[in-house]
Amino acid sequence: MLASLYRDLEDLFPELVEIRRDLHMHPELSFQEVHTPEKVADYLQRLGLEVRTNVGERGVIGLLRGGKADDNSRTVALRADFDALPIQDEKDVPYKSRVPGVMHACGHDMHTAALLGAAKVLSQVKEQLQGNVVFIHQFGEEKPPGGAIAMIEDGCLDGVDVIYGAHVWPTEPFGNVAMTEGYAMAAGDSFEIQVVGRGGHGAQPHTTIDPLVVGCQLVLNLQQIISRRINPLEPAVLSVGSIQSGLAANVIPDVCKLTGTVRAFSNDVREFILEQIERIVKATCDAAGARYKLSLLKGYDAVWNHPEQTQGVERIAKQLFGEERVRRVEPSLAGEDFSAYLKRIPGTFFLVGAGNPDIGAVYPLHHPMFDGDERAMIVTGKMFVSLVWNELQGATV
Amino acid sequence: MLASLYRDLEDLFPELVEIRRDLHMHPELSFQEVHTPEKVADYLQRLGLEVRTNVGERGVIGLLRGGKADDNSRTVALRADFDALPIQDEKDVPYKSRVPGVMHACGHDMHTAALLGAAKVLSQVKEQLQGNVVFIHQFGEEKPPGGAIAMIEDGCLDGVDVIYGAHVWPTEPFGNVAMTEGYAMAAGDSFEIQVVGRGGHGAQPHTTIDPLVVGCQLVLNLQQIISRRINPLEPAVLSVGSIQSGLAANVIPDVCKLTGTVRAFSNDVREFILEQIERIVKATCDAAGARYKLSLLKGYDAVWNHPEQTQGVERIAKQLFGEERVRRVEPSLAGEDFSAYLKRIPGTFFLVGAGNPDIGAVYPLHHPMFDGDERAMIVTGKMFVSLVWNELQGATV
Amino acid sequence: MLASLYRDLEDLFPELVEIRRDLHMHPELSFQEVHTPEKVADYLQRLGLEVRTNVGERGVIGLLRGGKADDNSRTVALRADFDALPIQDEKDVPYKSRVPGVMHACGHDMHTAALLGAAKVLSQVKEQLQGNVVFIHQFGEEKPPGGAIAMIEDGCLDGVDVIYGAHVWPTEPFGNVAMTEGYAMAAGDSFEIQVVGRGGHGAQPHTTIDPLVVGCQLVLNLQQIISRRINPLEPAVLSVGSIQSGLAANVIPDVCKLTGTVRAFSNDVREFILEQIERIVKATCDAAGARYKLSLLKGYDAVWNHPEQTQGVERIAKQLFGEERVRRVEPSLAGEDFSAYLKRIPGTFFLVGAGNPDIGAVYPLHHPMFDGDERAMIVTGKMFVSLVWNELQGATV
Amino acid sequence: MLASLYRDLEDLFPELVEIRRDLHMHPELSFQEVHTPEKVADYLQRLGLEVRTNVGERGVIGLLRGGKADDNSRTVALRADFDALPIQDEKDVPYKSRVPGVMHACGHDMHTAALLGAAKVLSQVKEQLQGNVVFIHQFGEEKPPGGAIAMIEDGCLDGVDVIYGAHVWPTEPFGNVAMTEGYAMAAGDSFEIQVVGRGGHGAQPHTTIDPLVVGCQLVLNLQQIISRRINPLEPAVLSVGSIQSGLAANVIPDVCKLTGTVRAFSNDVREFILEQIERIVKATCDAAGARYKLSLLKGYDAVWNHPEQTQGVERIAKQLFGEERVRRVEPSLAGEDFSAYLKRIPGTFFLVGAGNPDIGAVYPLHHPMFDGDERAMIVTGKMFVSLVWNELQGATV
Repeated sequence: MLASLYRDLEDLFPELVEIRRDLHMHPELSFQEVHTPEKVADYLQRLGLEVRTNVGERGVIGLLRGGKADDNSRTVALRADFDALPIQDEKDVPYKSRVPGVMHACGHDMHTAALLGAAKVLSQVKEQLQGNVVFIHQFGEEKPPGGAIAMIEDGCLDGVDVIYGAHVWPTEPFGNVAMTEGYAMAAGDSFEIQVVGRGGHGAQPHTTIDPLVVGCQLVLNLQQIISRRINPLEPAVLSVGSIQSGLAANVIPDVCKLTGTVRAFSNDVREFILEQIERIVKATCDAAGARYKLSLLKGYDAVWNHPEQTQGVERIAKQLFGEERVRRVEPSLAGEDFSAYLKRIPGTFFLVGAGNPDIGAVYPLHHPMFDGDERAMIVTGKMFVSLVWNELQGATV
Repeated sequence: MLASLYRDLEDLFPELVEIRRDLHMHPELSFQEVHTPEKVADYLQRLGLEVRTNVGERGVIGLLRGGKADDNSRTVALRADFDALPIQDEKDVPYKSRVPGVMHACGHDMHTAALLGAAKVLSQVKEQLQGNVVFIHQFGEEKPPGGAIAMIEDGCLDGVDVIYGAHVWPTEPFGNVAMTEGYAMAAGDSFEIQVVGRGGHGAQPHTTIDPLVVGCQLVLNLQQIISRRINPLEPAVLSVGSIQSGLAANVIPDVCKLTGTVRAFSNDVREFILEQIERIVKATCDAAGARYKLSLLKGYDAVWNHPEQTQGVERIAKQLFGEERVRRVEPSLAGEDFSAYLKRIPGTFFLVGAGNPDIGAVYPLHHPMFDGDERAMIVTGKMFVSLVWNELQGATV
Repeated sequence: MLASLYRDLEDLFPELVEIRRDLHMHPELSFQEVHTPEKVADYLQRLGLEVRTNVGERGVIGLLRGGKADDNSRTVALRADFDALPIQDEKDVPYKSRVPGVMHACGHDMHTAALLGAAKVLSQVKEQLQGNVVFIHQFGEEKPPGGAIAMIEDGCLDGVDVIYGAHVWPTEPFGNVAMTEGYAMAAGDSFEIQVVGRGGHGAQPHTTIDPLVVGCQLVLNLQQIISRRINPLEPAVLSVGSIQSGLAANVIPDVCKLTGTVRAFSNDVREFILEQIERIVKATCDAAGARYKLSLLKGYDAVWNHPEQTQGVERIAKQLFGEERVRRVEPSLAGEDFSAYLKRIPGTFFLVGAGNPDIGAVYPLHHPMFDGDERAMIVTGKMFVSLVWNELQGATV
Repeated sequence: MLASLYRDLEDLFPELVEIRRDLHMHPELSFQEVHTPEKVADYLQRLGLEVRTNVGERGVIGLLRGGKADDNSRTVALRADFDALPIQDEKDVPYKSRVPGVMHACGHDMHTAALLGAAKVLSQVKEQLQGNVVFIHQFGEEKPPGGAIAMIEDGCLDGVDVIYGAHVWPTEPFGNVAMTEGYAMAAGDSFEIQVVGRGGHGAQPHTTIDPLVVGCQLVLNLQQIISRRINPLEPAVLSVGSIQSGLAANVIPDVCKLTGTVRAFSNDVREFILEQIERIVKATCDAAGARYKLSLLKGYDAVWNHPEQTQGVERIAKQLFGEERVRRVEPSLAGEDFSAYLKRIPGTFFLVGAGNPDIGAVYPLHHPMFDGDERAMIVTGKMFVSLVWNELQGATV
């Protein structure tokens, strides 16, 4: 049975490519998605699923009610995200983004198409399913607070027992599937600092409170959080991404602005870092008599992959693609709001290789030249179908 | 005789105000002066002076040949500058600048009008003069390399024995005249630094060479030039006026750009500072494996007021305005290309009080609200006339 | 059979306490051990083992040849270290160190006594052993390059198939056994830096090259190795432990001396850190025109516990002491030259709880008040005996 | 008359050398002077002066009452200091210090002998003097709070109208006399900082509050007082002279100790710097959660040489030694408690050249090899005699 579903998926490849390229040409930014959810909802409705739109404002969920499901049956959720990034597409391909400055540079177009493909295939065997499947098409993954929490609060996980999600991964060769048990992706917060001094003539520093020098001290002082104050066994990153102060060589400016990002796995470490930032900003400004404004912007929690589901993904992937195509990988310090689902129910988030030098798929996520091997959609679809089968039918082949 | 010249100057006040306000409403940026020199030349020609235009490209000089001068007679130069600044005039006055973003925020309009007034008065007594007077109307004072050197190379000092210049000074109350013997205004150079690293994801600093951190270190390391490496008895300033790196909180940028200014009196100190900047930039980048581009832009030499002429100015000012209106002041770390004249011939550059809270003349030079008491033009004119009289006729009353 | 060996060990407790306290009162520093190895050799000889002394200069090995061993039999090594530390014993106990400034503050006295106890018990059943046991009593563990490599080069591992070692652990309660699979203890290197400037009067910094300021910059610049240049997923530490420069408030010194330590697990990270130290020291001194001397002192490799043996220790400990007394722990960033054995043959290094607030055993290793619950020697002995039994007789009960 | 006094002084040279070398061989530290004041008092008594000992605890004053003085007569004070320094004499001369670790490395032995010589010569013409002379032999000049204030409080300036003091100066060639009008020597304060953190294992920085890193930050942060916060026209120095923290490479220490010196001329700048030190220490420790102890030790006020007396010294020196031997010099950032006298009465402190490469007198003050040309004592004596003559008799030749 499953074998025939896999074949159906393979046959769907041209259609999934068409869907994906349409999305790729018409990307929509996080929290501005309008046409993408319409297209998704339309497709799911045509499959005969029970579809809810505007879930959490812009999300879409499709419910496939199994023919043999009853009140005690399990419900599996599969999730794909569909928002794009504020990046100018610099690829030279026919399906290049038509929207200036907006681009699917993180593969969400492929996630969406792959999940639609899985929905199509599974809907064909609806009557035999001993449980239900919820297809979660999520908006706003790229921008905290993200769409996941809003969709959860709007009920997308109601009655769901387990959830799976996947991400195409350019640094993993096409054909591979990769996973990490436990912490897999980091919590990521950001901060904005304004050091407010008092400007003046560059030749008279003593009449000023030089915010530029204070800002530079801050950047260096913040380094010590990582180098001195965090358990070396706890991965953590603090990067200042921007500093902006002053316009003229001979004028001491009034203000220095900095922004940065913090990454960690445990919430304790994360809270500790944010506390230390505040302490250091305050003291560094005090030393110079400068004032400051500090905004801490909480991002996503760390993705913690549940062991049982992760081991399940590993086992199934090995069956589907062979041992040599499957590997455990180190956690990533990137972030994902899939964490919000995994804090509520069991599940796991795995990686699907999409790198392929032969077709120029060699660029990292968020790069203006990013592209992935589209066959990764079939790999993703097969994993989704097989995971559902395993959960609901108790079989993987 | 002089007393009547002073009265003539006082009578000229409405005319000088008119000239000054016309210039104020139609300011022209350094090295872009067209109409201003035309107006000046026109005025001088109507006085019957021998006028040369386009001196050093945009300057104007007027020669008043004394009726009693011979080949052994002395020639005195008086100098005023006439360029404006790229600053938006924010005053609310009828004579506010008509040119968006351009403003006479440094009083050069008053300098010009005062010098024209002195020319008019002195031209009336031309026949009695036992020497000559050169009226130097200089362009491009605000922007290195400045107009002075170009005008000198084009002959404006040929045959000149001594030179005087003045600046309206907002921090000195109207009515006062101030001067400094020896070093009076600093040499000022500027620098631009680009630290070139290798950008990347904010969560993966180890894959990058973070130029932002290097730039911040640079700012702090440069402080040591002043605090550790310069003789404490030698005034010197190094200010970083701008730092710009990165745009996003979670992206490590490729480049960090800095600009700054250096001030010192002696050329030895100045050269030493520039050498140290290069040494520190190189080493700080080396420590991180970053590359750099460093541009050092030489500015004006320090203004060194010759003692004899400075003491002459002091004495004359006391006679004209009373002891209590005249004072020696500390040198300023601002710059002036009047230094170029003083490196070639004797002379001095003095300050004329223009501050007056009653009329809102309380803002510093280069401030968008800057204005000065226009009567300072009469003070300047009297000083010029008296200095000429002293030089050529050997009398000051 | 084993049960009776365990009872024998328990009966040995008074003797082991006596041995341990004798060693505790007469500690000998690393590479200065004379009486300790004599006592050990004497005890092993009295047990009838084949004893070699001066192994690798100061070590002792005892060979227990099993009565049923043949050429194909396995040989198990057990290792204890016996050197002490340059620390003043501040405990108030009858067995306090008699040697001023020298102390067994790391429990090596207990390791030695426990291993002698295991040797005594096992030697009683020599005839039944189907393999051989080598008792390695190692000198110089506290001080790189350590005694392990010298003893290995002198043959202490010849013919040995597997090795076990243990450490009493004060932060683990008495009764517990703890272990880490894979990297368990870090590689630790140290460095010494001399920044050589040019001293002078504190009031004339410009005539000097101030090495104190350079040294302080170095400390801060070195922080960036950890905060910016190491993969956040790789545990690593760089601590500057001392800085010494200058004696008088008003004299700028000639030299600033710093020492510090580096910890990491992988040799790549370790090498990278040492390279970066050199780069940063060179550049930071260059920026000031100072010279430097840098010594990098390679310490021990990281302890990498082989999985099979570690899992064996875990299983046996659970059988002996119950599941609740056994736990996996995070790796430690402390160092151990047991790593040298584990790079050559399989084995593992485990921790034996010795903390006990009731008897004041609450201080960390290397603390002047350190002490451990002496019953940990029996726990260690039982583990050793059981591990030997498992390896040679294929049984653990 | 004066000419014969000068000859008498020249004839005294062997005696002054003997006195000076005796003092040089038996130096006494500040506030520990016992035999030196006894010798001085004894000499003055033998001259027939009215001598007071234990002035301000250890000082000596001799009063020479002029034979023609009456109640309206002027009284001139001449001052020499007699304490030595905690420096090991490294010269190889017969009169090398006999006291280990103590040395007249600042020429106070020569000052003392020169003043005794002046006293001897002037006492010979006592009957002709139309006023009085007070010879102030001061203890404790090298160590704040210094002996001057104590001697003043004990009456040494009572009835005194004007005071002169001199210092032998190794960087000025023998034969020269140098002086500075106004600020001549800086105010000098010192500070001690203890940063109190919490020590621990070098491999576990996160369990500590690392005071060493905080101390190093402090050193760098303090640089900004000079580079950013002081008017560049105001000479000022802040040097950290010592930093001491930690003993072992792999132990994070509890405490970091720093000492340093501050120099400035105006009391406003001086107070401002001390305030800023406190602000920066507090904030820098706050940033790390460390505590601190800060001691600010006020030193001497700046020496401000009164113009009239300074010009008098210049004029007399030119008469005595020729124009070419006399020069104005820049102020020094070294300190002197002669400032205490000059805050109360007019006077000046001048420099007497003592450098002479031919006899190895090439080392700076406070150097273990310091020595001066002993003929500087005669120059000093002649200046003192001539100044007294000028003040009391109204003649300088």
